[in-house]
Amino acid sequence: MRPSGRAADALRPVFIETGVTKHAEGSCLIRCGDTHVLCTASVEERVPPFLRNTGLGWVTAEYGMLPRATTTRNRREAQAGKQSGRTQEIQRLIGRSLRASVDRVALGERQITVDCDVIQADGGTRCASITGGWVALRLAVNTLLKAGEIKSDPLTDHVAAVSCGIVTGTPVLDLDYTEDSNAGTDANFVMTGSGGLVEIQGSAEGATFSRAEFDQLMNLAEIGVRDLVAAQKDAVE
Amino acid sequence: MRPSGRAADALRPVFIETGVTKHAEGSCLIRCGDTHVLCTASVEERVPPFLRNTGLGWVTAEYGMLPRATTTRNRREAQAGKQSGRTQEIQRLIGRSLRASVDRVALGERQITVDCDVIQADGGTRCASITGGWVALRLAVNTLLKAGEIKSDPLTDHVAAVSCGIVTGTPVLDLDYTEDSNAGTDANFVMTGSGGLVEIQGSAEGATFSRAEFDQLMNLAEIGVRDLVAAQKDAVE
Amino acid sequence: MRPSGRAADALRPVFIETGVTKHAEGSCLIRCGDTHVLCTASVEERVPPFLRNTGLGWVTAEYGMLPRATTTRNRREAQAGKQSGRTQEIQRLIGRSLRASVDRVALGERQITVDCDVIQADGGTRCASITGGWVALRLAVNTLLKAGEIKSDPLTDHVAAVSCGIVTGTPVLDLDYTEDSNAGTDANFVMTGSGGLVEIQGSAEGATFSRAEFDQLMNLAEIGVRDLVAAQKDAVE
Amino acid sequence: MRPSGRAADALRPVFIETGVTKHAEGSCLIRCGDTHVLCTASVEERVPPFLRNTGLGWVTAEYGMLPRATTTRNRREAQAGKQSGRTQEIQRLIGRSLRASVDRVALGERQITVDCDVIQADGGTRCASITGGWVALRLAVNTLLKAGEIKSDPLTDHVAAVSCGIVTGTPVLDLDYTEDSNAGTDANFVMTGSGGLVEIQGSAEGATFSRAEFDQLMNLAEIGVRDLVAAQKDAVE
Amino acid sequence: MRPSGRAADALRPVFIETGVTKHAEGSCLIRCGDTHVLCTASVEERVPPFLRNTGLGWVTAEYGMLPRATTTRNRREAQAGKQSGRTQEIQRLIGRSLRASVDRVALGERQITVDCDVIQADGGTRCASITGGWVALRLAVNTLLKAGEIKSDPLTDHVAAVSCGIVTGTPVLDLDYTEDSNAGTDANFVMTGSGGLVEIQGSAEGATFSRAEFDQLMNLAEIGVRDLVAAQKDAVE
Amino acid sequence: MRPSGRAADALRPVFIETGVTKHAEGSCLIRCGDTHVLCTASVEERVPPFLRNTGLGWVTAEYGMLPRATTTRNRREAQAGKQSGRTQEIQRLIGRSLRASVDRVALGERQITVDCDVIQADGGTRCASITGGWVALRLAVNTLLKAGEIKSDPLTDHVAAVSCGIVTGTPVLDLDYTEDSNAGTDANFVMTGSGGLVEIQGSAEGATFSRAEFDQLMNLAEIGVRDLVAAQKDAVE
Repeated sequence: MRPSGRAADALRPVFIETGVTKHAEGSCLIRCGDTHVLCTASVEERVPPFLRNTGLGWVTAEYGMLPRATTTRNRREAQAGKQSGRTQEIQRLIGRSLRASVDRVALGERQITVDCDVIQADGGTRCASITGGWVALRLAVNTLLKAGEIKSDPLTDHVAAVSCGIVTGTPVLDLDYTEDSNAGTDANFVMTGSGGLVEIQGSAEGATFSRAEFDQLMNLAEIGVRDLVAAQKDAVE
Repeated sequence: MRPSGRAADALRPVFIETGVTKHAEGSCLIRCGDTHVLCTASVEERVPPFLRNTGLGWVTAEYGMLPRATTTRNRREAQAGKQSGRTQEIQRLIGRSLRASVDRVALGERQITVDCDVIQADGGTRCASITGGWVALRLAVNTLLKAGEIKSDPLTDHVAAVSCGIVTGTPVLDLDYTEDSNAGTDANFVMTGSGGLVEIQGSAEGATFSRAEFDQLMNLAEIGVRDLVAAQKDAVE
Repeated sequence: MRPSGRAADALRPVFIETGVTKHAEGSCLIRCGDTHVLCTASVEERVPPFLRNTGLGWVTAEYGMLPRATTTRNRREAQAGKQSGRTQEIQRLIGRSLRASVDRVALGERQITVDCDVIQADGGTRCASITGGWVALRLAVNTLLKAGEIKSDPLTDHVAAVSCGIVTGTPVLDLDYTEDSNAGTDANFVMTGSGGLVEIQGSAEGATFSRAEFDQLMNLAEIGVRDLVAAQKDAVE
Repeated sequence: MRPSGRAADALRPVFIETGVTKHAEGSCLIRCGDTHVLCTASVEERVPPFLRNTGLGWVTAEYGMLPRATTTRNRREAQAGKQSGRTQEIQRLIGRSLRASVDRVALGERQITVDCDVIQADGGTRCASITGGWVALRLAVNTLLKAGEIKSDPLTDHVAAVSCGIVTGTPVLDLDYTEDSNAGTDANFVMTGSGGLVEIQGSAEGATFSRAEFDQLMNLAEIGVRDLVAAQKDAVE
Repeated sequence: MRPSGRAADALRPVFIETGVTKHAEGSCLIRCGDTHVLCTASVEERVPPFLRNTGLGWVTAEYGMLPRATTTRNRREAQAGKQSGRTQEIQRLIGRSLRASVDRVALGERQITVDCDVIQADGGTRCASITGGWVALRLAVNTLLKAGEIKSDPLTDHVAAVSCGIVTGTPVLDLDYTEDSNAGTDANFVMTGSGGLVEIQGSAEGATFSRAEFDQLMNLAEIGVRDLVAAQKDAVE
Repeated sequence: MRPSGRAADALRPVFIETGVTKHAEGSCLIRCGDTHVLCTASVEERVPPFLRNTGLGWVTAEYGMLPRATTTRNRREAQAGKQSGRTQEIQRLIGRSLRASVDRVALGERQITVDCDVIQADGGTRCASITGGWVALRLAVNTLLKAGEIKSDPLTDHVAAVSCGIVTGTPVLDLDYTEDSNAGTDANFVMTGSGGLVEIQGSAEGATFSRAEFDQLMNLAEIGVRDLVAAQKDAVE
């Protein structure tokens, strides 16, 4: 029995509210249970130096956590003077994942920065950031299409992410913080709407895991991503 | 006529929603027109080195702005590796202002950190942070009182803040971003519920200002703070 | 009775020695009692990026304190790797104050940086920096005028600053360190030679203050700035 | 046909030379083809603050690349003033991987830091660092056992890592730099000597990948790790 | 003929004014021609961690240059966020040089920090810092002796420094900035009052130099240091 | 009797292995006894800003030490976020020394960066870096000559360096770590193949030293550099 009473293959309730800030070209607040992430997509008519005059666009991501998004207060990274290794690892993952759905020729020589700021954390913030970040990106691209800035849609598919883990011997989908803290194995899966794999990150915590166990996690991930993509569709349509 | 159609002595609509994050001892989302600030108050059973073993408590504040809280995206301070001079100036002001309402003996040797994170900006973010920050602080103190951690209420009064300015020759209350950009003089007033002055910061932008003009701004501030204190009372009761 | 024996409305003795370094276009050593600040104004034929090709000039300021300017040694900021929030707040104030006297069109597209380095501190260093900084700026502009680099004088008025405070119930002018440490309310006033207000910063320390008290401080400030402007005139003529 | 002429399931030649520096408690130079990494394990009789007085030990890792380990010179991170996100991500991975083989009770309250410095890079530096880092760790632990500092062996198994990828449609083992640059999918597998999975990181570059493809990569990884563990055994025995 | 009209073996005029700041335990303003350095010595009743409970004292130095001490303005190091390599090299040299005259047992477990801040630069700032720094140190030690904090004098000798160089083929003493810029070889000599050598730093700029040339520079240095020590004696007695 | 049994004027065994990394234009591993330094020279077709469009080339150096190159582990500078004063001082010395042998007109407008990374330290790392760095530079220049990128040889002479010191009263050549720790005086000499002096750095540790003693050290240095230049010749021919 999971602490939340959920079935092993059940996501937490997902709500995606769009258009939550008036300035960003695309934005949403995604809530996966008690994990709440504000995602904004900002369009800028410039690209990083390595892409200048190539005609190719760029999508990048940044991640942050408000100091009291967590059970106890964490030091503000702006105060500490640097982003932690964990933060950098997560924002690199979000950026790579989102780029998997982008036709950078169709996007044209411009950059979209997706900011994912965790308002409240209860496990799975990086996955919620990817799922919500894609929605913000989708909406920003819609803004560009509507304004005639770009002609053909550069987004080739949905991208969503979910965590799975083995908790006291049972493979379960979409871990909350309590489960995450007790998981023997923890894995994040990023997939497209058509079921292609984009990123897999699996990690043993304590004991190692077997191929059979990992296969069970991937089965769960496929269920979870399918449901998250459905929630994305509801949000953007 | 003001861009918003408001009277010269009218605040923007103020909404203060409390209990917006599940982890913080006190929290609120304050919306002053299109300026939205998330305020959390975190209690920690430790004080800065200079207060150890004095029996005195401490209240401090930190301020941040999400990168796309503004019309165009600003660089994330955690990425830049330091807080800007503006950020530091604002968070020092918030901290000083809130401490004006705190009996540090009654608080006991613990620290409350008030985090003010601007979700959306449209002028007056430092004033909204003080007004909302006080609500978060009030709620955190209530939590401590309820739990019996402290015996007598360390909060001696309300603290709220409002900006006033002279826009095209007319003194007006509670400037939004458009007005702020065009103001000849800009002043922030921090006051208590009983009308005592806590902080005054007035600044000429371009031309200088006279004592008579400054008096008019202070008259407006008294009206504004009175209304903000009423909104605080509604929120915490 | 004040510790220094001064009347409530008396400044400390002010001495402004000009031309104290051979390299700077304008310089002075200002001594307000035991507070000594070395001010230099450096002309550079470039402006910050946001002003390029606008024809407008810029005046900015930086502030520092020698490690042993104070009673006990402070850590060198260059060693600490950053300027403190206090330093940044002060240098932003000095820059804003000096710009209030500058016609940036007449200055032309060049930058003048006013460096204020506190050699010895005894209260009121930010005010002495503004008063002395204006003298250094005046002298640097004179150098430009004499050299024919600029045609019409870009300085529209004097700018000087003084602190006032309520010490054991009595409003007094130009606080030294001992008074500053005991002041219930502390305010800095920046004004022009013709009596216009440029900046007002008032702060309660402990108790709040009333409008009547603040008015008394402003009366004192008017006396103090009038005398400081006279000292500036003596120095530059 | 691979650029190196290797079979799809063939590792590059692996050489592990032990005892390469006279100061470290354990050290080796691992060469996987043209990728050369110097690994040292340093024992210190202290642990990070969160482990003090718990009786538990700690194993951590740091990773660096000499500026000219690569085709073109990279900026020295000590000069840049920070470790890149990539560096931090890699050293976190090495540390987590090595800890999977450590009984932290048996290690006792001390820390072993494994430094992995890339002398020459040709793809697969993080995997070579894990495989070589384990050897350095093994040797340092042997030093402690021999000296009687610890009684029972805290290393529960071997840990080794290998990369696999899909290059022009073909799954291949142990990518060199040329293959890595052209891989459509790239995955790193960390496993124990007994075949348990420790870490899996798979990433699409451009196109997505399927479960079937990922299974093929895992098959290759099992072959590669088996051979690497054999090389570790040769080296330490 | 030297630009200044000085003889090859003539120092610039040296003036050492003592007691120039009211807070420091020892202080002086040393002027070597147009090079002016403010030196303060601060006593603190603590030592660096590596000396705790050893009974030994410590003398250290820090060096800074005001932004407009030079012909054109230099960036403030506190603003840049770090001390330059040149600054660190100089302050390490000053510290080592001064320690050569200190009996650290007699000093007792306390630290004296000598701050050398260049007010105006015209070549030879590191040498002036050492010569003036010793005077500040001497005066601070006198303060301690007078107060009975230490019983026997920990200063064993004078320490002074001078630069020499080969300018257009001629060895000359005490280079000013113009000579320094044109010197083929440049050397700094730190010596004690009794003629012992403490530090020698010689550097070819362009061509190399011979032992014979170096000997000539050392002859000049002996003359210069003798005269500087005489100036120190005048100042402190 | 020296700990190593060497005669007072004997170098440690010197081995210089060239071509040790496949990417760098020039490289060597220099071993002076137990001090091992990896030196690479990287050619880049760009120069620092102050040399653009002057036709002049530039040679610069960077220095690093692997964390466990020393008896006990040192903190990684990339982790600490800055290079120590010692590191900066050393790399500035290496760069100046190497430039003494370079005709920057003949080199043409390009930069060669010599990286000296200490793999194992036993005293004299800065001298080994200069001696080995010159070999790497020589080989990189040979690469450019062979490729026809430059027409005439820009290297005008050999440059090599050695330390000397007075250990328990006896002047000795090429100190190892044990001797260095006990030396009363320590000096580094950088010289050319034809015997010209490039850099001299002598430092008293504790007692001062006399001119006679310094002369003895210079005699030893001439012997040492002659032998090191011979080793360089063997290596590059």
